[in-house]
Amino acid sequence: MSAYPPVKIGILGLGTVGGGVTRVLARNAEEISRRAGREIAITHAAARNLDTTTANTAGIKLTEEGLEVVNDPDVSIVVELMGGCEPARTFVLRALANGKHVVTANKALIALHGNEIFAAARAAGVMVGFEAAVAGGIPIIKAIREGLAGNRLEWVAGIINGTANFILTQMRSKGRDFPEALAEAQKLGYAEANPSFDIEGMDAAHKLTILASITFGIPLQFDKVYIEGIGRVTHDDVAYATKLGYRIKHLGIARRDENGVQLRVHPTLIPQRQLLANVNGVMNAVLVKGDAVGQSLFYGAGAGAEPTASAVVADIIDVVRTLTADPENRVPHLAFQPDALSDLPVLPIDEVETACYLRLLAQDRPGVLADVTRILADCGISIEAFVQKEAPPTASEVPVVMLINPVKEKRMNQAIAAIEKLASIRAPVMRIRLEYLDSD
Amino acid sequence: MSAYPPVKIGILGLGTVGGGVTRVLARNAEEISRRAGREIAITHAAARNLDTTTANTAGIKLTEEGLEVVNDPDVSIVVELMGGCEPARTFVLRALANGKHVVTANKALIALHGNEIFAAARAAGVMVGFEAAVAGGIPIIKAIREGLAGNRLEWVAGIINGTANFILTQMRSKGRDFPEALAEAQKLGYAEANPSFDIEGMDAAHKLTILASITFGIPLQFDKVYIEGIGRVTHDDVAYATKLGYRIKHLGIARRDENGVQLRVHPTLIPQRQLLANVNGVMNAVLVKGDAVGQSLFYGAGAGAEPTASAVVADIIDVVRTLTADPENRVPHLAFQPDALSDLPVLPIDEVETACYLRLLAQDRPGVLADVTRILADCGISIEAFVQKEAPPTASEVPVVMLINPVKEKRMNQAIAAIEKLASIRAPVMRIRLEYLDSD
Repeated sequence: MSAYPPVKIGILGLGTVGGGVTRVLARNAEEISRRAGREIAITHAAARNLDTTTANTAGIKLTEEGLEVVNDPDVSIVVELMGGCEPARTFVLRALANGKHVVTANKALIALHGNEIFAAARAAGVMVGFEAAVAGGIPIIKAIREGLAGNRLEWVAGIINGTANFILTQMRSKGRDFPEALAEAQKLGYAEANPSFDIEGMDAAHKLTILASITFGIPLQFDKVYIEGIGRVTHDDVAYATKLGYRIKHLGIARRDENGVQLRVHPTLIPQRQLLANVNGVMNAVLVKGDAVGQSLFYGAGAGAEPTASAVVADIIDVVRTLTADPENRVPHLAFQPDALSDLPVLPIDEVETACYLRLLAQDRPGVLADVTRILADCGISIEAFVQKEAPPTASEVPVVMLINPVKEKRMNQAIAAIEKLASIRAPVMRIRLEYLDSD
Repeated sequence: MSAYPPVKIGILGLGTVGGGVTRVLARNAEEISRRAGREIAITHAAARNLDTTTANTAGIKLTEEGLEVVNDPDVSIVVELMGGCEPARTFVLRALANGKHVVTANKALIALHGNEIFAAARAAGVMVGFEAAVAGGIPIIKAIREGLAGNRLEWVAGIINGTANFILTQMRSKGRDFPEALAEAQKLGYAEANPSFDIEGMDAAHKLTILASITFGIPLQFDKVYIEGIGRVTHDDVAYATKLGYRIKHLGIARRDENGVQLRVHPTLIPQRQLLANVNGVMNAVLVKGDAVGQSLFYGAGAGAEPTASAVVADIIDVVRTLTADPENRVPHLAFQPDALSDLPVLPIDEVETACYLRLLAQDRPGVLADVTRILADCGISIEAFVQKEAPPTASEVPVVMLINPVKEKRMNQAIAAIEKLASIRAPVMRIRLEYLDSD
């Protein structure tokens, strides 16, 4: 069928994702070669624990030393599935210097070292595929970088961490509180024993960093992402949000405004009628707003061996298809040509304007609400809606919930600080940002 | 920024979509050239009514004769936005023979003449982009053809006609009957004066033909699609479906089973909790099931000047990026290499197994239900659920609604024919197929 010999792949890492990639490439070998016009063969692999891998390694030259794979002249494409920044970064840079294409699923590596890695790839005239680094099996990098390339993209908002979404879904559907829902996620294997990376928003921030770059054509700048996890969201918050017609989701949001780019990861109320509000369990989804296309949503499995393998293999096929093509005409890594990246500033969270939900515990006596609303009014902040829950007759404190119209974070923070100083209010005040998603 | 001169585009057709493409290319020129590495300029255009176009034609060489554009040696890419099969087919084939790349939004042209057009493109070593032909601004061709290329794809199910989806949405949300909802769609410009193409399913069948080819690697075969429109769905059906926990959507479904490929367009019940059930109004969405990725959903605007332009411009950028690249390494038009298409048979609808919803009008006397259930049992058909609506006390006929477990169409048709022969049943029986979408 093809005039070309099989393309030889060297894999770094044979853990969960590595096992998935070997399985998918073997199982779908016939369809894949019909698509790519050429056979794809895993010929080399490096792993630390060759005894414990679930991958079928028949016919693969195995080693415990990654450098052997990236230095092997037979290997055309290095697939990095080790995770973590080192030694992955060293191996990837060496592979690129050796003239090999690289495909990786490593979001931390790309978010933190992508600028360096892409420059090295450009110097060597080779490609780096990283579709699997964001939202697992959803081809969102390709959709934004190529499928929506005619648009001026205005914002992206995504559920890009399945663990956090599973926990929030459990809190709503089963009425659980955060610790219980986390324990359930751990029991089902959806959360690590040490879950902080997922629930504190670090993982989502890595992915958002990458999404923002390809959306706006800015360099990767992880250190400027505002990050807030889901650990403070209570079951009460989830219930109030539902009552108000919203769902709480942990979103990564990148938005271009007149001053620069907002990059933020935090729990967010969104209207229940939005598709994104109905993305449940461990599923991921990314909503993109373009000036021509309007809103598009991309939904699918954000993690797991085979969904991630789906993205890794798609990248391998893309590389194979362009193995003989002119490097100048390849899709640029960050959607825009490297010498055409923009220096749009990333906005500090203080300068970002958002609506929000506030929950206070107030002493049940006259004048407390007047104090709170006066503080808000003094800060120029307006209230959109109020819910006062009936407290049991013996309670000395009542919860007060309100929706606040959009206001700059700086001002909202001042107001919250002033409210927390009131003797009649029990600190801290719970604030969850709110996005309607249907505005421009 | 780029060593390459601007790429010159010739447009055929300056109607709604043509106007959108000129607008988007002009408005986003800076971002687009940053993405593509090269400027893109519309230099030629042909249109029948040059007086009435809304496109900004400053700097464009205009003609009323399409052949002048496709024969002009200055034009590198011909963008066909005329619609209809002729003279679009003639112009496209001439453009390809002249060595020009082609981008088209014309679903009828690709569904009916794509095999011929792709062969001509291959012979000439040029590309044909047709992202805009399916689901407007949603980059679904790219997602399936490239983003999910590592999967063995099992089925696709899509809301791919916005007019039909708008009408069904109105019937549910506003309690309207079909003729009223259609009139509303016409008033808002979502349906043509002659709406038969949309509501009878022809337009969806064109799109499904294309989706099925790129999903399964089979040649385009529009004549084998089973087509049923939404004209027979009543407000009662919509209300019963809602009561049972479902929504009625007009779906295009392509599914691979052990015997071949199912290609069908018909009204379908889907569980309310599915994201696809919550795609409302004129929006489109396509759900794809792959063996590695699981279910992915792609949602967005399926029609309109600028969403369609979004897809057209993305295709233009793809062509521009590969203008100097080796044709052998381009993404194949139908996802699979042309000499590697499959001869999987398309199944006649009789051989397809589906669940369904049945609604009968039965005389309100003892024994009628027994007759109906006996006929079903004799045909080996089992009932999953029953709803009997309270008829007004004076009515002589009562509606009976049931959900039927999956069974081959042939057998269901026999049973329906037998039921319609019962003296106690008023023919015709209403049958709407039902898809759970979460099975394999």
